[in-house]
Amino acid sequence: MKLIIVGGVAGGASAATRARRLAEDAHIIVVERGPDVSFANCGLPYYIGDAITDRSKLVVATAKRLRERFNLDVRTRSEVEAINRTAKSVRIRDLVTGQQYDESYDKLLLAPGAAPIRPPLPGVDLPGVFTLRTLQDMDRIRAYVDHGVQRAIVIGAGFIGLELVENFVRRGIATTVVELADQVMPPFDKEMTSPIVAALTAQGVTLLLGEAAEAFEAAHGGVNVKLKSGGSVSGELVVLGVGVRPENKLAVDAGLEVGTRGGIRVNDRLQTSDPDVFAVGDAVETVDFVLGGPAQVPLAGPANRQGRIAADNIFGRASRYRGTQGTAVVGAFGVTAACTGASEKTLRRVQRAFRTVYVHPSHHAGYYPGAEPMSIKLVFDPDDGRILGAQAVGGAGVDKRIDVLAVAIQAGMTVFDLEEMELAYAPQYGSAKDPVNMAGFVAAGLLRGDHPQIDVATLMAIEPADRPLILDVRTPEEFSRGAIAGAVNIPVDELRQRLADLPTDRRIVAYCQVGQRGYLATRLLRQRGFDAANLAGGYTTYRLHCP
Amino acid sequence: MKLIIVGGVAGGASAATRARRLAEDAHIIVVERGPDVSFANCGLPYYIGDAITDRSKLVVATAKRLRERFNLDVRTRSEVEAINRTAKSVRIRDLVTGQQYDESYDKLLLAPGAAPIRPPLPGVDLPGVFTLRTLQDMDRIRAYVDHGVQRAIVIGAGFIGLELVENFVRRGIATTVVELADQVMPPFDKEMTSPIVAALTAQGVTLLLGEAAEAFEAAHGGVNVKLKSGGSVSGELVVLGVGVRPENKLAVDAGLEVGTRGGIRVNDRLQTSDPDVFAVGDAVETVDFVLGGPAQVPLAGPANRQGRIAADNIFGRASRYRGTQGTAVVGAFGVTAACTGASEKTLRRVQRAFRTVYVHPSHHAGYYPGAEPMSIKLVFDPDDGRILGAQAVGGAGVDKRIDVLAVAIQAGMTVFDLEEMELAYAPQYGSAKDPVNMAGFVAAGLLRGDHPQIDVATLMAIEPADRPLILDVRTPEEFSRGAIAGAVNIPVDELRQRLADLPTDRRIVAYCQVGQRGYLATRLLRQRGFDAANLAGGYTTYRLHCP
Repeated sequence: MKLIIVGGVAGGASAATRARRLAEDAHIIVVERGPDVSFANCGLPYYIGDAITDRSKLVVATAKRLRERFNLDVRTRSEVEAINRTAKSVRIRDLVTGQQYDESYDKLLLAPGAAPIRPPLPGVDLPGVFTLRTLQDMDRIRAYVDHGVQRAIVIGAGFIGLELVENFVRRGIATTVVELADQVMPPFDKEMTSPIVAALTAQGVTLLLGEAAEAFEAAHGGVNVKLKSGGSVSGELVVLGVGVRPENKLAVDAGLEVGTRGGIRVNDRLQTSDPDVFAVGDAVETVDFVLGGPAQVPLAGPANRQGRIAADNIFGRASRYRGTQGTAVVGAFGVTAACTGASEKTLRRVQRAFRTVYVHPSHHAGYYPGAEPMSIKLVFDPDDGRILGAQAVGGAGVDKRIDVLAVAIQAGMTVFDLEEMELAYAPQYGSAKDPVNMAGFVAAGLLRGDHPQIDVATLMAIEPADRPLILDVRTPEEFSRGAIAGAVNIPVDELRQRLADLPTDRRIVAYCQVGQRGYLATRLLRQRGFDAANLAGGYTTYRLHCP
Repeated sequence: MKLIIVGGVAGGASAATRARRLAEDAHIIVVERGPDVSFANCGLPYYIGDAITDRSKLVVATAKRLRERFNLDVRTRSEVEAINRTAKSVRIRDLVTGQQYDESYDKLLLAPGAAPIRPPLPGVDLPGVFTLRTLQDMDRIRAYVDHGVQRAIVIGAGFIGLELVENFVRRGIATTVVELADQVMPPFDKEMTSPIVAALTAQGVTLLLGEAAEAFEAAHGGVNVKLKSGGSVSGELVVLGVGVRPENKLAVDAGLEVGTRGGIRVNDRLQTSDPDVFAVGDAVETVDFVLGGPAQVPLAGPANRQGRIAADNIFGRASRYRGTQGTAVVGAFGVTAACTGASEKTLRRVQRAFRTVYVHPSHHAGYYPGAEPMSIKLVFDPDDGRILGAQAVGGAGVDKRIDVLAVAIQAGMTVFDLEEMELAYAPQYGSAKDPVNMAGFVAAGLLRGDHPQIDVATLMAIEPADRPLILDVRTPEEFSRGAIAGAVNIPVDELRQRLADLPTDRRIVAYCQVGQRGYLATRLLRQRGFDAANLAGGYTTYRLHCP
């Protein structure tokens, strides 16, 4: 068996080492355009920010290591320029000598990754305007920063953008973020990004949302970014983090099928439309695990697993890739945000029915010092309660809860299963009723009809004059520190005595700080004949929507 | 509906508040022997150690709160002395006035908890010999400590024992632990407790394993603990943490069924042998979720959920308790140890077939600073790969992986599912191949027959002369820092060139630091015709077994 692998980083390197473990006799050639194989893309921003100080740690496995340990024929600084599917060979160019040659294959695996998008704007190729993909990109940005940068502009507030911002601020750089969407971290629902916005603002980051770069101009030792809105912002350094595009040229030129967004089409064995050609990683289109449609999600975890599965299939094993659910996490300025499965906005776009709940628990028992708050949004099927997605933002323990919910989604579990989950509890680690249980209680109660719920957005969309009675059941102290406009305050502990103060001919929306007392009030009022509903997630969710 | 609940802490308080939310009209009486309801048992050691400084935080809900917010008829300092099931009434004694009275019920819920075992040893009632269950117990121990304690003795190295030890050391007290078993933390398999033992030893804690107290004697302002082995140890303070016994007297006197270990028998609706009497919490015997037999596991999470489920059933809802899987976590001196499902020793005891793997990954990407190591032991079905149990010990992220594995067990997932899990990855939080994926890779590879594996215990049980060739495939530097006796060293990177040095007529057991290079060596050697196996978990697992 002669296997050629195009690309030697995440998916390619995983496939190559797996292939070797499966077949000691195979001839396995890894062709990598860059000088490095198997490096840690996800670490690049942190080396720029000096959080990672040892550059060599970013190289997971050197070409030498892959040769010695795995007996791989690694050819760095080499580019595959064309695939001849009929002859089953590829044309390789040695980028050092310029020499071209053909190499035959029995099986071909494409793992070329995805390239940062460089929008075709005037001045986009000016010195000082960067993208970040390789160690060399990183070195260039870092050299620039080391040379002295006062002001930086990051275009795009997604994962890489946010990580860059944190690291620029760590280096003492005044940073501006320009984001086309009206929110940071577009994979999240907007309200869940409010704590990130608050953290960015607290760090002095300038955030320009709903804004786009129109042109870049050289300006006294730096770059002036002209904005669509007419303004401009300038700095010594601009980094474009506006997304990536699958490196599909080889595949397209070879007549392999690609999806509408450009990802190389593969089946669940990671086989392209040519059965002898496989593809993995950021370059492919896979299946959305939750919704079933096509998914193009550039994530390191799926890339690595795909590499492994492709190698299995190449060597005759029937491994299947189950699809990608988009589990991801980002940390910046002490805030952790993580998500898995479908967001509310995705479900709205595909017109899939869903219900939503919010909970705002502490990471661990409140009585133990250091409990950090988090907000969890759970999205689930309105009929059977199957979990469709989850987002969480806060401090410690956010990643844990999203991992737990990711597994629940993988297992096809429902909100009723979340109620019953038995998770590890000691005061430093969780609560007897874990945040995941809490989300399950609220969601299951909703589906059982125990407490009608109204969303903040729905309530606020009603004309003020037509709104239900908004009943704040918190303490007067909490009420005085900020409340929803027009709300009346009756603390939940006094509610039974003050039922006569409430209207019987008008809907009542109860709320508290996080939804729990509001739920109790709703239960109480409904059993007493009032038409009551609970405001989803209480005042804390209201503040996420209306910071 | 008139509901009487006996016991107002975890399970009882959960049941009472759930009952109120379900039935605004019900008369709900909570009878609690102590002065406090709903306090945080799990926090008690930390108040003694001054990690929690505000005592009031340990009271989750006061009796006043339960009365005002939930309209509960809370009767503290009151004890239910007898149940008259025929009359459907209980005899209550007011412990303040001594007055007795009968109270009728429609439904009765028993949530009396479990009492610390006080072995009937001479001197066990001496001043200075304590158990820890209530806030009052805590106050007494703390007063003793505040008064000045130089040396303390903790009898029992389970969860509470270990937490007490940490807190005594935090207070500067020289602490001795006496444990009957030959290991600390008996729910864990012994080798997984080695890092805990190392941490205790590093803190100067004296650990007497396989040792028991025989008698307690007053000795110049303290207590002298006579040991079974003949020696003795003395200190100003002794705390007994040798386990708990279900408070089943009421139930037994009333003729309700109890299990062989004393737990009140309940069905999956938490109903006792009397359909009008329910029971929850540490006093009941439930079902082992993994093995199906009876389980008596005193844990706060299950107690709280049982309270909720019992209330549901009392008010006509068909909630079911699924059984307890024993998910638990403990932290001490920076070491976190957590477990879920069955241990190897439990499976051996019940003669259930299983396989085991070990992995020793870092909490998060190694290239990002601060990655803390952990060891995970996974136990699974040898035929279908269903996960039966998991244990982990290490630093940060141990609780996360056990929670993920707990959910996998709840979902009936297999080791093949662990391979495919899509978990959140960014360098501060995990790895592209998460520790849980790694455990899945190793376990699934084992079941697929990719790499025969031999356990440390099995290897060490073979007479040295009869052992296979033990091949250390680490670097010479690693080898020189410590290796298994009799091992020969051929680094994995040189193995292909040195095959001629290896015997073809003798079994070879390869090992590296954690099992990964050992696995590669095993694959390589087997494909070259050698009879090779991998040492499970490598040298790190060897060191857990043979510290």
